[in-house]
Amino acid sequence: MTPLHARAVAAATDRQGTLLKPPGSLGRLEEIAIWMAGVTGDPLPTPRPLVIVAAADHGVAGEGVSAYPPAVTAQMLAAFLGGGSAIAALAGEQACPVWVVDAGVAGLADGWSDELIRSGLAPARNITREPALSPAELEVALNLGRELAGRAARQGFNLIVGGEMGIGNTTPATCLTAWLTGHDASSLCGRGTGIDDAGMERKRQAAATAVALHGACDDPLEALRRLGGGELAVLAGVALGAGESGIGFVCDGLIATAATAIAAAAEPGLIPRLVAGHRSPEPAHSVLLDHLGLDPLLDLQMRLGEASGAAVALALIRLACAAHREMKTFADAGVAGPS
Amino acid sequence: MTPLHARAVAAATDRQGTLLKPPGSLGRLEEIAIWMAGVTGDPLPTPRPLVIVAAADHGVAGEGVSAYPPAVTAQMLAAFLGGGSAIAALAGEQACPVWVVDAGVAGLADGWSDELIRSGLAPARNITREPALSPAELEVALNLGRELAGRAARQGFNLIVGGEMGIGNTTPATCLTAWLTGHDASSLCGRGTGIDDAGMERKRQAAATAVALHGACDDPLEALRRLGGGELAVLAGVALGAGESGIGFVCDGLIATAATAIAAAAEPGLIPRLVAGHRSPEPAHSVLLDHLGLDPLLDLQMRLGEASGAAVALALIRLACAAHREMKTFADAGVAGPS
Repeated sequence: MTPLHARAVAAATDRQGTLLKPPGSLGRLEEIAIWMAGVTGDPLPTPRPLVIVAAADHGVAGEGVSAYPPAVTAQMLAAFLGGGSAIAALAGEQACPVWVVDAGVAGLADGWSDELIRSGLAPARNITREPALSPAELEVALNLGRELAGRAARQGFNLIVGGEMGIGNTTPATCLTAWLTGHDASSLCGRGTGIDDAGMERKRQAAATAVALHGACDDPLEALRRLGGGELAVLAGVALGAGESGIGFVCDGLIATAATAIAAAAEPGLIPRLVAGHRSPEPAHSVLLDHLGLDPLLDLQMRLGEASGAAVALALIRLACAAHREMKTFADAGVAGPS
Repeated sequence: MTPLHARAVAAATDRQGTLLKPPGSLGRLEEIAIWMAGVTGDPLPTPRPLVIVAAADHGVAGEGVSAYPPAVTAQMLAAFLGGGSAIAALAGEQACPVWVVDAGVAGLADGWSDELIRSGLAPARNITREPALSPAELEVALNLGRELAGRAARQGFNLIVGGEMGIGNTTPATCLTAWLTGHDASSLCGRGTGIDDAGMERKRQAAATAVALHGACDDPLEALRRLGGGELAVLAGVALGAGESGIGFVCDGLIATAATAIAAAAEPGLIPRLVAGHRSPEPAHSVLLDHLGLDPLLDLQMRLGEASGAAVALALIRLACAAHREMKTFADAGVAGPS
């Protein structure tokens, strides 16, 4: 993992102390600008963000843990690529490109889109009965994620906003949270896309069963293989690749943060390159944020996934860096300091 | 005060229920888009924002209530108009114009800038001894604010982000908060731009003295005249003018929100046209937000004023409206709804 650039952090911190405002009065905007300096090595950083959305299906959806049918995963891909989804609108408004990865979506026609990045993975297996991915599938997914982050870095992006889509995927993400933090899986379950009470009971049962079946392992990537899924593994790879390639990674909601937390458990040196975009109302998300020591920039009760919350936070990162770059110092502006 | 457009609110609410996401999953972005529909009467609204920053000096600064010398107020005007200030950077990054109002700044040369909007007001008097403004000055300030909001509406802006600058002005704003809410003024005092313990003691004393001297009145605009200042009165006028002209108003921190709360006390029909951009760490600001029943969009520990926090919130308002306008419905996208 590439550490933050200490010299740029120091230069940006010094600069914040001289800008035309009482020290600290821009609050977390100051912290974000200094973080971006550390991420990029540039004391006057400009974010060049990329959204990566990984989508996959999950055998555990067959346990009735989601309010929506699994066919929705494939149907949403068109709305990610061609427009019409929340992330297409939120990224488009900010002129931010979106890469969409098929990390094991069921029922996609071959040659469906040239723009879709294909992993060749099958949908994740039902984690209440067997591991989500084979060892070979895990490797494919992690390598693809790493490769995409490296490609992003080579193309000049310095910030990845990671998101996901996959009917049923709050269940594996909640299981991974339980594995990482020792919390009881069933008590961490939330309503996801909006399941009813009976669905919640099925979800709690499925999560508890999966953790009981697979939880006894020490290795975070093995936990990811057993309890995760294709998009979780690709995103873990993207986060690891961001750390390797020396760029920053903005965590979205529960699923994206669970993938990132697994990556950080494998490589703790990743953590300084993470920022939490927002806080989701899913109970497991707050547990993960505490686990990672991240304080989210936004709390807007967003719970959609697709990188939507992190994409909104991107606007704050851009503004923080704009203020940092473009403000004058007291000396340059000819303004008196404290009396 | 122009009420929100109920038909546009209903149409936007219906649309949010059909867009390509679980209902409610964009959280407060949905609420903001519906609010902008109500503000503009357009079920598919596009924010056209304007920042108005009013600046003034205050006799109470002579009581040693600020960490900075009063000369800073005038010195900052150049950085608002020509660049170099936080608001110039934050608004500029969003291509949002900034109007700057001299609401009683000391020591400005005549003809100093063609762009500066001049009120002709003198600095506010020391509120620990006499009323801040004369009745005629109050009228000039309120009328100017109203006129600016009307001009903004005629120019096609549909959202005003109100901000201020004025060395010493957290003291009058805190006094107005005490007057509005019945809280003890000295207990509401915060560190402002960053005063030390001795300064805090002077500030508490000045606030208590001013409220004891002037607090016995029933009329919010008379309280504004006695305990306020030029920028507070201009901003109260801008908020009233926004309500009259049928546009929206984004509250910034303590001072801007105090001015708005006075306006809302005079005209409670203004409240539906307000949104709170952020929460400042100044204790009186949270008291005002509760008083107005507003839940701020951001909590980034910003405490600069200049409309800076509200300008950051503007990015969220734009993104909320972009998602609302540009997302497809489930039907249009050919995606299955809940099973």
